[in-house]
Amino acid sequence: MRDFSPNHEWLSINTATIRKQRGAEVPLGRIIDQCAAHDIRAISPWRDQVAAAGLEATARQLKALDIRLSGYCRGGFFPAPDAAGLKAALEDNRRAIDEAKALDAPCLVLVVGALPGALEGQAAYKNIARARAEVRDGIAASLEYARSAGMPLAIEPLHPMQAADRACINTLEHALDLCDELDPQRSGMLGVALDVYHVWWDPKLAEQIARAGRERLLAYHVCDWLTPTRDLLSDRGMMGDGVIELRKIRTWMEDAGYAGDAEVEIFSAIDWWQRDGDEMLATCIARHTSVV
Amino acid sequence: MRDFSPNHEWLSINTATIRKQRGAEVPLGRIIDQCAAHDIRAISPWRDQVAAAGLEATARQLKALDIRLSGYCRGGFFPAPDAAGLKAALEDNRRAIDEAKALDAPCLVLVVGALPGALEGQAAYKNIARARAEVRDGIAASLEYARSAGMPLAIEPLHPMQAADRACINTLEHALDLCDELDPQRSGMLGVALDVYHVWWDPKLAEQIARAGRERLLAYHVCDWLTPTRDLLSDRGMMGDGVIELRKIRTWMEDAGYAGDAEVEIFSAIDWWQRDGDEMLATCIARHTSVV
Repeated sequence: MRDFSPNHEWLSINTATIRKQRGAEVPLGRIIDQCAAHDIRAISPWRDQVAAAGLEATARQLKALDIRLSGYCRGGFFPAPDAAGLKAALEDNRRAIDEAKALDAPCLVLVVGALPGALEGQAAYKNIARARAEVRDGIAASLEYARSAGMPLAIEPLHPMQAADRACINTLEHALDLCDELDPQRSGMLGVALDVYHVWWDPKLAEQIARAGRERLLAYHVCDWLTPTRDLLSDRGMMGDGVIELRKIRTWMEDAGYAGDAEVEIFSAIDWWQRDGDEMLATCIARHTSVV
Repeated sequence: MRDFSPNHEWLSINTATIRKQRGAEVPLGRIIDQCAAHDIRAISPWRDQVAAAGLEATARQLKALDIRLSGYCRGGFFPAPDAAGLKAALEDNRRAIDEAKALDAPCLVLVVGALPGALEGQAAYKNIARARAEVRDGIAASLEYARSAGMPLAIEPLHPMQAADRACINTLEHALDLCDELDPQRSGMLGVALDVYHVWWDPKLAEQIARAGRERLLAYHVCDWLTPTRDLLSDRGMMGDGVIELRKIRTWMEDAGYAGDAEVEIFSAIDWWQRDGDEMLATCIARHTSVV
């Protein structure tokens, strides 16, 4: 396993981690400057932040500061209650692929979607097998476009507590089954984004990471699971403050061939998003070199 | 599949469902009388409620009212930071088996435990594989006693969002792997309690229910998954108010040979526990006959 203690060369900051500082939304340009000031070499920005800052401007800023992407957040949300909705989702995913390409991202992360409408509180249907079939079809269609653009798609299995409203692919095994079905040749154009928060509990995690192998392991996200966890979405912990065995999981990843960034993605409405952004980045660096 | 529409013969009430009424704790004796008044023929009581009401008195009351148990809640919590803690857990599980026997329960439900101390906010260790080994050893030891007492043990896989603090067995597949290891002869003395809330999201659910079969399917719990879910523990929904495909899952259970009760277990601090207990029971009956 790589030694992360000497520096933070392999640290990436998912920009959601500091999208709010002292409770207030911070524009992407400012976030990128902050990362550069802390000598952070990689980020993973969100589409809405890029849209607000401008795609071209963001690409120029990243190039000027020599900051790379560890991924682009995010495509997905394929299921829909009708044909028009399914078509709109495919079009939106094509735009996301184009943006990822413009930013020279190594992959587009897919939060695949779940029961349409559930996120807004009213599911249009309850048949999760139907949602999963729509996800499969959506990824299959998007993969054609992704291949032509040369932009790998990374399915992110989400924690089962988000199966109803955000992503109906909830285990690494399930994500890899889909990869094997849609990309049996292991072309490198379809794989997974592994976020420890979503998968740490899985008794089959080590076995499935080994199964995934280098071609399928496109991104690695870290944070921690707090006890107690007070919110299903935005109470993630700083690495080292929870119960996830970070070193053990990174060992499995690297044994399987992963050699990329460790991307910090922390949604923390009640704690970190209320703090100072530079304190947050300094803490990410300290934990990256000591516990990740 | 059995037709539940004519009556509620197969409805059981887990007593946690109405342990609080209009925000106040209600004693078990009163809960049992309420169930009898609604012609509910089965309950699943909790140990602390039985301890407060008295084991003998509870057994007498149930017999007088001809109310059976669908299970007894609960044994488990095997992992501990030291040998004394592991031993204490085994002794406590023997007492739980004795109580289940005194109440003529069909099974003792096991919430197996997880990282010791995590429930109190500070895990004594983070090694979930160690917790799982301690669970295996604890069930193996308890199973000997359970066999001698003739009291089946039902492992309840809990939702992965409770993997850190309540139960480190989080899928039906994992629970059944353990059953196969410890009771390869399928004696009927070790099986699972399947709660739809914990497993509804699992893409392997149908396959694993079929694998379980009649000898392993010892209990069936129902409620619903709300969108949004506002709390990780106590925001369960009334059957029909969420996104779980209840009829589909019961079909799988009955196709596999299950012919027992559908036990309603709803923890709902912010909604149902604030309401009237008789309204709650009447609603359980209405939903049992219409959507379960």
